[in-house]
Order: sequence, then structure tokens, then C-alpha cells
Amino acid sequence: MELTQLIREAAKNLETPFLVLDTNYVKENYYKLKNSINDVEIFYAVKANSHTSILETLRDLGASFDVASKGEIEKLMNLGISTDKMSFGNTIKKEKDIKFAWDNGVEYFAVDSEMEVEKIARNAPGAKVYGRLSMSSNDSDWPLSGKFGTDVDHLIEILKYAKRKGLIPYGVSFHVGSQSYNKYKWKEAILNASEVFEKLHKQKIDLKMLNLGGGIPVKHTKPVPDVEEIGEIINESIKEYLGWVKGLRVLSEPGRSMVGNAGIIASRVLLRSRKGTQNWVFLDTGVFHGLMETVENFRYEVLVEGKEYSETTTMTLAGPTCDSVDTIYDEIELPINIDYNDIVYFINTGAYTNEYATSFNGIGPIKVYTVEDLEALLKGEIVFMEEMQS
Amino acid sequence: MELTQLIREAAKNLETPFLVLDTNYVKENYYKLKNSINDVEIFYAVKANSHTSILETLRDLGASFDVASKGEIEKLMNLGISTDKMSFGNTIKKEKDIKFAWDNGVEYFAVDSEMEVEKIARNAPGAKVYGRLSMSSNDSDWPLSGKFGTDVDHLIEILKYAKRKGLIPYGVSFHVGSQSYNKYKWKEAILNASEVFEKLHKQKIDLKMLNLGGGIPVKHTKPVPDVEEIGEIINESIKEYLGWVKGLRVLSEPGRSMVGNAGIIASRVLLRSRKGTQNWVFLDTGVFHGLMETVENFRYEVLVEGKEYSETTTMTLAGPTCDSVDTIYDEIELPINIDYNDIVYFINTGAYTNEYATSFNGIGPIKVYTVEDLEALLKGEIVFMEEMQS
Repeated sequence: MELTQLIREAAKNLETPFLVLDTNYVKENYYKLKNSINDVEIFYAVKANSHTSILETLRDLGASFDVASKGEIEKLMNLGISTDKMSFGNTIKKEKDIKFAWDNGVEYFAVDSEMEVEKIARNAPGAKVYGRLSMSSNDSDWPLSGKFGTDVDHLIEILKYAKRKGLIPYGVSFHVGSQSYNKYKWKEAILNASEVFEKLHKQKIDLKMLNLGGGIPVKHTKPVPDVEEIGEIINESIKEYLGWVKGLRVLSEPGRSMVGNAGIIASRVLLRSRKGTQNWVFLDTGVFHGLMETVENFRYEVLVEGKEYSETTTMTLAGPTCDSVDTIYDEIELPINIDYNDIVYFINTGAYTNEYATSFNGIGPIKVYTVEDLEALLKGEIVFMEEMQS
Repeated sequence: MELTQLIREAAKNLETPFLVLDTNYVKENYYKLKNSINDVEIFYAVKANSHTSILETLRDLGASFDVASKGEIEKLMNLGISTDKMSFGNTIKKEKDIKFAWDNGVEYFAVDSEMEVEKIARNAPGAKVYGRLSMSSNDSDWPLSGKFGTDVDHLIEILKYAKRKGLIPYGVSFHVGSQSYNKYKWKEAILNASEVFEKLHKQKIDLKMLNLGGGIPVKHTKPVPDVEEIGEIINESIKEYLGWVKGLRVLSEPGRSMVGNAGIIASRVLLRSRKGTQNWVFLDTGVFHGLMETVENFRYEVLVEGKEYSETTTMTLAGPTCDSVDTIYDEIELPINIDYNDIVYFINTGAYTNEYATSFNGIGPIKVYTVEDLEALLKGEIVFMEEMQS
């Protein structure tokens, strides 16, 4: 997302830290994905950012939603989103959440184990289930294999078991890993998925749905394949491996790629100090209040207002809490003259930021504004509770 | 904390997950520490657990409080705690928080850098500042060096600078690291602190306060020195190295050691599955909803209701969210017959659990009950909002 004059004005005049969201990027991302994968149905992964402005934007675009819990289902229902637009994609569900979802009209449930099939059979008899495949190897920043999914043969057994339990084996899902750099992973995954389709077809079970998961990367500090390139691979692979499936539905569950570039975090330098040979810069936000992904060394683009990157030095960048885990980057190149009260931006931080925020140290979760909020705040038209307290 | 019949009843009958707190343990911990260190003033580190029941218990015992932010100061003030019982121990403060604290009567401020001295001088002229020493080596689960504190010579310069800026150089603090296993670390730290006292005394600056920080360990899966042993070392070291200081005030800032053993988390098995050769057990709570410290492999004692530990196997224990980071322990020995819906307890989880909780995946932060809450809930006398929703 572009660092606009409005955001710069806001950072100068409002209390930091805050995350600003621009839903125009969400719209753009939605259409790009829609245009890149043939006949794709988009189920936005709510967990990436459940801010109302984003959910409303996607609702109005006609998107569907991938949900992880009863809490998310209720939030969507409260926004007038119909449950037939939801898929319960978490493979580890509470039984009462399954029942709640089913009783309220959610039809699709993810599984990757026999026990989950049993739980769904007990609480959502007749539901459509899709099985999650694990990925064998990895080229992503945030791998999701291991905890989720299982292998082809096991998945076939699980889907057959689902049928015996009165459920409808409906499809296959996978996840190439969040922020995946290798576009050929989708080809490999679709090939694996097609094996499940074929083997079950031979046993008179006809699956209808391929769920491509998420994983489309957002540009940060490394080059990434764009959605058009990935879409091309996906379209070719579906044609090649699943072209024979009549009436195949193709779903995508983008999270990061829908909202990652729709946000910027603005923060301020609270302290600069030197300890031994180490240069420390402390900000008013950190790991516990929006930048949790950095603990796994997720690298955002970092900009310092008014300071040039022509002369830089290696510094340690940390958050404001009394906890050493609250260290954003052990080593980062920053302008050598970065100073107290400088504004520091984290670019493309719309995904997995405010969602991971805690209230640790008596510091509330990061404030979230839309660009419209910023405009009104700068004009003095609205006063947020947080602003009033500050 | 003992796993009582009441907690077992509650776990069986109420919705999990929840954290139960027993403030009797807090009282016991308070008196133990008070009796172990001569004339110690206890400043409870609010960040460890800011639940009202704990703050009220410590308030009624006459404790003082180590605060990290304006938010914590306000919370304490709302509980009728006087600001002369607070010390602003965070070395990375917002200027407006310094001003707020000073204007409301907070007198003590921690520093470990020149810039923080300047911020305090601007906003709290005449305040008492204490300098934080870093520790050279480490034997703790959660080291705090690097981000906090500085060396003896630098600290002396900082405290002299504070004097020139119109502040009162008041004392020295350190932190041996959270959950420290080596009781001799306190001796080493007090020796280092005494060097600051001595060198400044020769320059006509007389410090008055030694702040021992936290770090007293809670018993989990490894043996730990008890508070009496640690107190003995501290008393001897103070006598040996600082016996010459007239009217020395000795402060302690316990966090974990005040509340760690005052809590138990009760959760349930949502799913058991096998992937390849790996056994997975999934719970209804995890890294994002109370068990954050386990990401750094902090090892709690884990008990499974009604299952024997005589026959165990290695499993992977994970939380309920769609995120692979939400894995509690990659390898843990659990009863071989652990099954769906079994109740799983995490013992001595009163510190840094609910404080680190997020609302990720639409799952709220872990519910917190006191033992009195549990009694009333089981009798049906009170209905919590969360219980009503479930």
C-alpha cells in the first residue's frame, strides 16, 4: 500500500501506534484474484483480518468466507452475511461450534482426521466435508504443514469413512504455506489432489470441489510471483489434472493476499540507546501489539519518515514492553540518524497484525483506522475513544 | 497450586478453557518473600498478571507495585491504590506517560539510557531515578539482558547525567532473568550494583535504593531454588557489599513468583490424530489464548484428568487455531490413552498466560475465574457473560 500524504499527516498529528486500512486495495486484490483463476469462488480467510471494514467490503463484492470458529461465524452473521457463503475451514473444531454452524446453515466443513469426521457426523449429519492434504516440502515464510493436512492415501480413507458416517465427501483442500514463493507448489498440490479425485472416482465417490487454500504472497522485502503468474499455473494444472471432473467447483481461501497490502502501521521512536557496541531503537509498538509475525523473522518493509536510507547502520529494533521477546528485529539496517520521535512505518501490514495483538503491559491492542477514519479524525469530525483517552 | 476437587468439578461442568486463580497462594508468596529478604519492600510487577483479584489481594496486604505503562497506573488508581506505592519500572516510556505518572504522584522511574533521562527530566523534574544494570551471563528460562540494562560504567555516567539534569539519582536495579535457576546470580548482581554505589559515593552521589528485580523461579518440571535460599544469599550479599550504605532501601519486583503458582489452566482435548508416525493432540486452548510462553519452550507440568502416566508416548500438543505457530509442545510425553474430551491441566500457570492472550481466530482470550467464582458458578449463583454465550 502506498504511503500517502494523508497517512503521513495522520502519523504526524494523531497518537501512534495505529494501523490504517485502505479497503480499495482489498477490492483490487479481489478482482485480480477473480480474474486470474478461472471461475474461482473466493472464500476470504477471516482470521487474516476480521476488521469490520474489510468484511463489509468483501461482503459487498459478493465474496464468501472461510471461518475458523463460532466467533467468526457470529461476527459475519451480524454483518448480514448468509451462512451459505461460509465454509468452516478449521480442522480442529469444537463440537458445539460444529452444531452451531450446521444449525445456522453452514454446509462445508474441513477434515484431516477420522475423529473430526465423527464429530461432524454427530453434529452436522449430511454435511459436505472436504479433506485437507498436507504438502510434502516447503518454500514459504510461514509453513502450515505438519499441524494441518494428511497424505493422499490417508485422506482417501478419511473421505470414505465420512461417506460411511453419512456425510458427503465433497472435495480436497490444501495449503502451500502462507507467503509461498514457489508458484510450482500449486501445480504439485493440484497433482496430489487429483490423485484423491481419481482414486475415489474409481470407488464411485465423485468429489466436486477443489479448494486451493491460501498462500499467495504479498510483496515485502523479497521478490514474489504475482497472482497472475500463480493463476496461470493453477489454471493449467486444473485443466491438465482435473479437466475430466464434471462441474468442478474451484475455491480459493486468500487471507494475506486479500489484506496484506491494504494496511500500514505507523509508530514512533520512543528511545534510542547504545549498549556496548549495539545500537537499539525502541518503538511504541512491537511484537505484542501488532508485529507478532516478526518473532519468526517475518520481514516487513520499514520506512522512517524524513530520513534517508543512503547512510544506514545495523540496529536492533524493539517494542515498548518489559519483555525481551518484544524485539522486532535483532538486526535491521536503519538510517544512521534515526532519532527520538521519528515516525516509523511498517508497510503492507494488513494481515496477521491487529489479529495477533494482546493487551500486555497495560498497553491496549493497536488502534485500527480506515482511511475514511483518518480523514475525519484530521478534520476533527470524529473523536475515537482511544483518542479521547490520550 | 494444588489441583483441588473444586477445580476438577469445575473443569467437568463448565466450558473450557479457563484459568482459575487462587489468591491464597499470592498471600503465601507475599509473606514468604517478605520473610526471606530483610526489610524488603515488595513492588509487584503488574505485567505478570493484572487480574483485579490479584491486584486487590496485594493492595490489601500493603504491597507496592511496579508498573509498565499509563494503562497499568490507571488500573491501580481505579482500585484505590495510591501512586506513592508505584514505581515506573519500564525503561522505554512514552513521554506523556511519564508526565501522567509524575503529575499523579509517581516518584520513581527506571532508566538505562541518556535519552530516557532527558525524557524524564522534561516531564518529571526532580523525580527519583534508578538505573538498571544488565547481567553478563544467564541461567534463566526467559533472559532479559540485551534489551534492558547497561554496564556498570555506563550506568554511572547515566546517573551522573540524571543529576546534572535536575533528577535525583536514587538507586540501582537489575534483573537476573525471569525464572532464574542459579541463586548465585543475585550475589553477582548485588556485587555489580555495589560498584555503582561505591563509585558514585566517591563522587558525592549517595544512592539509597537497591532494586532486586524479579526472577525468583516457580516450580514447573525442573527443580528450582526456593525463595528462602535465594533470600539468604541476597541478605548475605547485601550485608557484605552494601552494609556500609546508610538507610538502604531494598526493593523486590516479583511477578512470576507472586502469581505463577496461583493459577491452573483447564482445557479439553478437541481432537486426536495420527499423521505419518506423529501423534497429535489438539486442545481448546493454545499459544494464542494463554500458553504463549510455550513458543519459547517454557515447560509447564501437564496433567490429564483420569489418565495414568504409567504408560506414555511422545506426542505433539497443539492449540485450536488455523496457525502452525499454535503448537504448544513439539514433543511431550502424554498418557498413551489420552482421548477426545479429556480434561488437560496446565499447572502453575498464573503468570504471563492471560496477559499474553489474543482474540485470534475469533476465539476470545482465555476466561479467568477466581476459586470463589468457580464455587458460585457451580452453585449456579452467578452466570458469566461468557457462560451465557456458550
